[in-house]
Parts: sequence; C-alpha cells; structure tokens
Amino acid sequence: MIKPEHGREPKVVGPVLGDGFGEALRECWTAGGKTGHSYATIERDDGFLFITDVAEYFDDFDKLERHEQWAVKRAKGRVLDIGCGAGRHAIAAADMGADVIGIDPSPGAVYVSQQRGVRALKRTMKEQEPDIGKFDCMLLLGYNLGLLESRQEAVEILASLALKAEVGTRLFGNSLDPAMSSHPDHARYREENRRQGRMPGAYQVRIRHKNLTTDWFDYLYLSSKELEELIVDTGWEITEMETEGQSYAVELTLTRAGAVFPA
Amino acid sequence: MIKPEHGREPKVVGPVLGDGFGEALRECWTAGGKTGHSYATIERDDGFLFITDVAEYFDDFDKLERHEQWAVKRAKGRVLDIGCGAGRHAIAAADMGADVIGIDPSPGAVYVSQQRGVRALKRTMKEQEPDIGKFDCMLLLGYNLGLLESRQEAVEILASLALKAEVGTRLFGNSLDPAMSSHPDHARYREENRRQGRMPGAYQVRIRHKNLTTDWFDYLYLSSKELEELIVDTGWEITEMETEGQSYAVELTLTRAGAVFPA
Repeated sequence: MIKPEHGREPKVVGPVLGDGFGEALRECWTAGGKTGHSYATIERDDGFLFITDVAEYFDDFDKLERHEQWAVKRAKGRVLDIGCGAGRHAIAAADMGADVIGIDPSPGAVYVSQQRGVRALKRTMKEQEPDIGKFDCMLLLGYNLGLLESRQEAVEILASLALKAEVGTRLFGNSLDPAMSSHPDHARYREENRRQGRMPGAYQVRIRHKNLTTDWFDYLYLSSKELEELIVDTGWEITEMETEGQSYAVELTLTRAGAVFPA
Repeated sequence: MIKPEHGREPKVVGPVLGDGFGEALRECWTAGGKTGHSYATIERDDGFLFITDVAEYFDDFDKLERHEQWAVKRAKGRVLDIGCGAGRHAIAAADMGADVIGIDPSPGAVYVSQQRGVRALKRTMKEQEPDIGKFDCMLLLGYNLGLLESRQEAVEILASLALKAEVGTRLFGNSLDPAMSSHPDHARYREENRRQGRMPGAYQVRIRHKNLTTDWFDYLYLSSKELEELIVDTGWEITEMETEGQSYAVELTLTRAGAVFPA
C-alpha cells in the first residue's frame, strides 16, 4: 500500500440511500450463507466503522451467544421476533415449538427470512396496522434492545409493544454495557453523549453495503441498570437476566397494561 | 434491524486522518493474523465500500493467488517489494532466496513487516533518498500496479523506478481488468471516468479502519492491454504474463535506461 502524492480532488457523490442492510443479507443468502463473503458496515456519526460479516445473521441455535440461547429457549407460544434480520432467532424459536412471526422494515431482510421459512412482514415495531394480534412473547435479540433508540423514545416504543401484549407477556432482549469498552474513541463518544444530555451508549449510525446506505438512525447500547431505570414507568419489569461478558439478556414482563402509556 | 423514525440529526464529525490501513494490519498482527477479526474498508469516492479481511495480508506462499505465486517464484537477486503491506510477498520471495527490501508509506505496515522479519522502510516508491541502491527485481504485487495511479502519473512513477534499476531489471506486478465486472455501480463508475477523460479503472479511494482514514488517493485497475499501451514510451516492456480469471501478473523488463524519462 503506497499513498500517492498527486491525487485528483475526490468527488464524493455517494453512497445512495437504500436497503444496505437487507442487500448484504440477500447477497450472503445467495452465496449460501458462507463467511468471509458479505459484510455490513455500520458507520457511526463520528466516522467510526464497525464491520459485520453478515453470515452471522444466518447462525443456527448452536452458534448463538450463550445468553441469546438462554433467551430463545424461553420463547414460548405466539412469538413476535422484532427486527428479525435473516431469521436466526425466529428459526431457532420455531424449531423449539414457538409460533413465530418476524418483522423487519428491511425488504431484503424480509425476503431472506421468508426464503428461510419464516413468516416475516415488512414493518417496524411501532406500526400497528394491519393488526397481527397479541403475542405471548417478543424478541429484541441480536442486540435489538438498541432499537429502543433513546431514553425518550423507549417509553413510546414500549407502549407500542404493550398494545400487542397482555399482562404477563414477556419480552426477551439483549444489549451490552457500553461503559465496558475502554477504546478511546468509544469513551470519547460516550462523553460527548453525556455532555449533550444523552445516554452514553446512544449511537447514531447508518448501515452501508457496497454503494447503498440506510438513513441515519438511533441505536442504543445500555447496561441492565440503565435499562431498569429507563423502564420504571412503562409497566415492563426485568424478571430474569442472563449475563455473558459485557453482554446480557433480560426477560421483561408486562405487569400493568395500557394505562401508564400515552395513547 | 428496525429503522427508527425519530432520529436526531446526525453530526458526522469523522473519520480522523491517519494510518487506517496500517492500524488494521497492526490489529490483525496483534490478534495472531486470524481471519474474521480485522477489516480494512476501501471507500471509493462514489460511496462504494469494499471490505477486506486483512488477514489475507498475512497469507503465506501457498495461499497466494496462483498468478502471484508465479510472480514471486521469479523474483531473484536484490528485490524491492513496493507497498509491502504486512510483508507476505517479501517473506515468500525471501524464503526462496531473494534479498528483499520492503517499502511502504504506512507506519503500521512497516512495523508489522519488521516484526515479521522483513527489512522494511517507510517510504513511497517515488522517494529517492536515502539511497537504497539498485535492484534486480521489483514487486508491485497485491494489485499494486494500482499504485501507477493514472495514465499521467504512470510515466513519472516508472521513471522513478528506473532510477533504482538497470537495463534488464524486471518488475512483477498484477492487476485485474476492470471491464470484466458487470456490477452496475462499477460500470457507471467506469463510464464516468471515460466521460472525464480518465482510464476506466482509475479509482479514487481512501482506506478506513475504525475511526481512521487515509487521505484520498488514486488507484488504477487496468487490463494488460491498457498497461501495454501505457508503458510504450517508458523503456519498460511486458516480457511475460500469467493470467488467472480477471486477474493477471506481468513481468516488465527495463529495456532502455534513463534517456526516455524526465529528470
């Protein structure tokens, strides 16, 4: 690698807005789910890049992290897999007898999930229509507690989920404690978040693949303690927890329905 | 993966200018050269991302592409490995008896190469000082014919290399024919290049890793026919060639020294 000295001025014109995440999944699926072939690049708004070999979205139960296995094994009855990706958790839960519907706003993710036998719908967890009924159990695995976005959004999102639930409904999600990374760039990012009144692990990211990128969106890493504080008025309570290194999975149970949430 | 709807405005502040390429190599080296751990993201100026698992920069001879093996086996005597990266070609050539010096402008690449036993210097191929003598053979492998940058720069660069050479000196390099990719984004990029009077495979790229990025630089993919036309007045001639799919390696031989080049 040599850095030339007489480059022309770069004309940065892209990337193009599109289903960067889903296209990475679709490419990997077409290639038989093999590793070392298709990557999603998660770009944080400080320029930090996280690279994911999307073959991991095709992992079967045995390859899931231990705390995710713990959660999947507890998903019973009618299950909503939120942000189902390529369907790894939906398939694992269905194999254990659950009746699973997956949702994801990414057309590519929905396509791949369907190809793999998952009943998958293109929608976000905030959408109520068309009605797909109530669920015994919801999954926010694959670190999808991150989809709670922020301290502010979390209440609204949990209210939306409660509308698909009844008292006793359980929600399994996982995350990691952002404070456990000592990488100076992450420490700096957390500090800037604090300075601006946000939770330390509140990331703004987009997912890029080849020439495509998603819009920027909020993604939240939070410790179990932060989660506990955040849900205090939502009717959801942490009823079980499984930790694994800096990661953890929780079982949330809905203990009060409806009244505590905005309409 | 769910796309939230109420994101804050992204404040894109990075990435930071630095040795993105070298830091990826250094990280991979620290991790024992294992795959699936460290990635370099090559970002083209149309927003297209190419992801490289930098473990491949640590490949031993047996893992090199066949046309690169062909080239390495022919590198004899005093060898200059240009853009040596983590030293894969330098080490392979040295193992076969060559006396190799590697150069790379990336401090991280030089560090890793040195750790792996390569005599490596931090410099570009255009730099003449301090004098490191003449070479029997030069390597532009790992697709480092790309470092010829452009039609215009190639003559200057080959002149600079000729100053380290004598008539009969051989240069082994490889590239790939950019026209053989039918991906619509690549086709569009080539077309835009043609429209602007550049060679179709003239890429403007930068290498990113975590929060770091190199400067934008020119990198040229060219067919063997384009190479042949480009070097016609440089004193270098294609004397051997080995093809492999859309890739190829050439042996260039310096047939005339000095006079044809600018001072």
